[in-house]
Amino acid sequence: MKNYVNIAIVGLGQIGIYLYNELKLKKKAIEKKTGKRIQIVAISAKNRNKKRKFKIDKKLFFSNPNLIFKSKKIDILFESIGHSDGISKKIVETALKKKIHVITPNKALISKHGDYLAKLAEKNKVNLEFEASVAGGIPILRTIKEGLATNTIKKVYGILNGTTNYILTEMENSNESFDKVLKKAQQHGYAEPINPKLDLNGFDAFAKVRILSALAFNNRISNQKCLMEGIENIDLKDIKIAKQLNLRIKLLGISEIINNRLFETVHPCLVGQDTYIGNVSGVMNAVITEGKPVGESILQGEGAGPGPTSSSLLSDLLSILRGNIKYPFGVASNKRKVAKVFNNDDYSNSLYLRFEVNDKQGVLSTITNRLAKFKISVKRIIQTPDKKRNTATIIIITHKTSEKNARNCLSIFKKSKNILKFPTLIRLYN
Amino acid sequence: MKNYVNIAIVGLGQIGIYLYNELKLKKKAIEKKTGKRIQIVAISAKNRNKKRKFKIDKKLFFSNPNLIFKSKKIDILFESIGHSDGISKKIVETALKKKIHVITPNKALISKHGDYLAKLAEKNKVNLEFEASVAGGIPILRTIKEGLATNTIKKVYGILNGTTNYILTEMENSNESFDKVLKKAQQHGYAEPINPKLDLNGFDAFAKVRILSALAFNNRISNQKCLMEGIENIDLKDIKIAKQLNLRIKLLGISEIINNRLFETVHPCLVGQDTYIGNVSGVMNAVITEGKPVGESILQGEGAGPGPTSSSLLSDLLSILRGNIKYPFGVASNKRKVAKVFNNDDYSNSLYLRFEVNDKQGVLSTITNRLAKFKISVKRIIQTPDKKRNTATIIIITHKTSEKNARNCLSIFKKSKNILKFPTLIRLYN
Repeated sequence: MKNYVNIAIVGLGQIGIYLYNELKLKKKAIEKKTGKRIQIVAISAKNRNKKRKFKIDKKLFFSNPNLIFKSKKIDILFESIGHSDGISKKIVETALKKKIHVITPNKALISKHGDYLAKLAEKNKVNLEFEASVAGGIPILRTIKEGLATNTIKKVYGILNGTTNYILTEMENSNESFDKVLKKAQQHGYAEPINPKLDLNGFDAFAKVRILSALAFNNRISNQKCLMEGIENIDLKDIKIAKQLNLRIKLLGISEIINNRLFETVHPCLVGQDTYIGNVSGVMNAVITEGKPVGESILQGEGAGPGPTSSSLLSDLLSILRGNIKYPFGVASNKRKVAKVFNNDDYSNSLYLRFEVNDKQGVLSTITNRLAKFKISVKRIIQTPDKKRNTATIIIITHKTSEKNARNCLSIFKKSKNILKFPTLIRLYN
Repeated sequence: MKNYVNIAIVGLGQIGIYLYNELKLKKKAIEKKTGKRIQIVAISAKNRNKKRKFKIDKKLFFSNPNLIFKSKKIDILFESIGHSDGISKKIVETALKKKIHVITPNKALISKHGDYLAKLAEKNKVNLEFEASVAGGIPILRTIKEGLATNTIKKVYGILNGTTNYILTEMENSNESFDKVLKKAQQHGYAEPINPKLDLNGFDAFAKVRILSALAFNNRISNQKCLMEGIENIDLKDIKIAKQLNLRIKLLGISEIINNRLFETVHPCLVGQDTYIGNVSGVMNAVITEGKPVGESILQGEGAGPGPTSSSLLSDLLSILRGNIKYPFGVASNKRKVAKVFNNDDYSNSLYLRFEVNDKQGVLSTITNRLAKFKISVKRIIQTPDKKRNTATIIIITHKTSEKNARNCLSIFKKSKNILKFPTLIRLYN
């Protein structure tokens, strides 16, 4: 690579504009570390005149991102629009075909089209880097691809979404409802103001799980329908009860190889209050890998926000400037196989079940009989009556049972007149 | 680099022999990831016939390590003898001069001669890699050099020695004395059987601190005399008292920039039982970096043993096989400056002081008066009488005071007849 390197940034949202500023601030430091002098030659966003945190050089501005390729020669392009398809995909595709290195924090794009784009990058002998797409400032992808490169990894899991972790932590600390805390999260900029759904329903964490899996197990990105649950239905009541049981609710993303098959999931989990993962709070992210021979490795750090994201984007930039052409997923695309998929129905956990019932004789035994019918054995029962309303809350912690069995068993509770609502189910972390 | 890569291993101790076996096991996986076919062409150790965990190919064996260079052409050499000078230094020097890449877990060598060897590597355009020298399987050096490359790091600290962390954890859990637990550690292979001193007195952790500093702050390796204390004088009594105070004793390695000056230290620290670092137990290591814009990053993993060490050695190998010629310390040697050094005397902490005294009236006020004379203000006092012996234990937690002041103040306690031994001092983590 020559000594002057031309850079384009497409997308000037919160991340793009922060990156733009960082690139200008760190120009000297980057030259010191790599011997390369970077210059921003094109920036693009929808709105030229939008109020932004840092001032932009309007001479470099293009409202139509497709036109940037016709301006100066570009060596490296940052895509920070963030769509899974459409203009994001088109810009990245065009760049790679024109032998321009691409860096992106776009997990939606990579988890959907990563395999195709990686092939394209390999064919054109350029880099496609996406460290910032998973766990913000934590260099977890680089760690799996390089630091732990020759380990056999069996499992990678963790807290991959800062928004939901903030909400769960804050519900516990403030004793406030999901809705109230969500509003607070939006005020602090921890949740999307208009449509926070993709964080809350587990989709965001799931995209990250898919990218992690592909790297950890050298598989193609899976597109199998998987068990995905968010935190929208987590009640303050469950958080309080968990606390009494020395447990805590966390939204975990998990990817593991079970019987040589790939299992990926995102769902709320009850974890011990004294465990490591139970103590990752607020907007922090943490990723745990279990590898051989290295053992358990933990990486924790800020999972979102323009600062941490920009740290990862620049680490990708340095990797490219240092002249390392690498396979985007650590190995050549033609060596990555389609994984056999584990049947979700066979996933087994101890369960936390919460029943809201009329406080009548016989209700508890109805419940336990039905559980017994499905061979779900009970580890612990806690019944708390609400004298005023003549109702009771029954918490049952079960021994391990499969998804399928639990689903079949719980479905029959719908019909019962003394059971006031469909039981709440939260899995315990194995 | 050509497609066949010749490898030599010098030193077949616990780590060398494990590495030898791993290289043979992972040959295919390495080819898949890098396209290079490795072959071990020379191994060397003092004793050809020593009983080893894995069988070696005696045709490749050299008792005299200097002779390996005269056998087949070597591309990459692993040094795992472990001395700071002597044969270790000579082999690495010779290899680099012969344009052979070097990989080593040898922290003693790197912390002493790293600057010189890095220059030699740069001059000869080969790599000198030493990921395994700090925190075993945790890829912390790579993370600082690459993952966090453009961050401004102000502080890096952590638990860098598994032996001492095991001993402190085990003393707390088993209520046994330092000497007993040390023996247990030796039986488990967590402490050197013959001379465990370099782990216990903080020297091992200190070598790692120096390497971390050099990478985090882009300085030359410092050779300043620094505050270094080990755990040999930690009494079970202090561990028990710490527990009552909701604290825990950890041996921390700390490197930070204070007022633009470098401060490096290793000493036991009282940390909160509910803090992250307070919960890193047993042989685990953890490294925490504070950077801008990334924020706080934590890496935790197994810090020692052949498995984790070998994981890091192989990550270095892959980095070389992938064709990345890199500056050993992340930037060119001529851009690394000699750091201005912070005066140890000005290092300030809250202190835990334990006095063993005769239980007589006036003793406590003698102590507090002397503290007051040195303007050391007291946060908390706990006096526990031992009725039988007519003695008492006085614990004083002070507000922040400087090293110099504390030293001067404590020195006068030597003379007192009612103070039965020189007071124990443990710093609280800031």
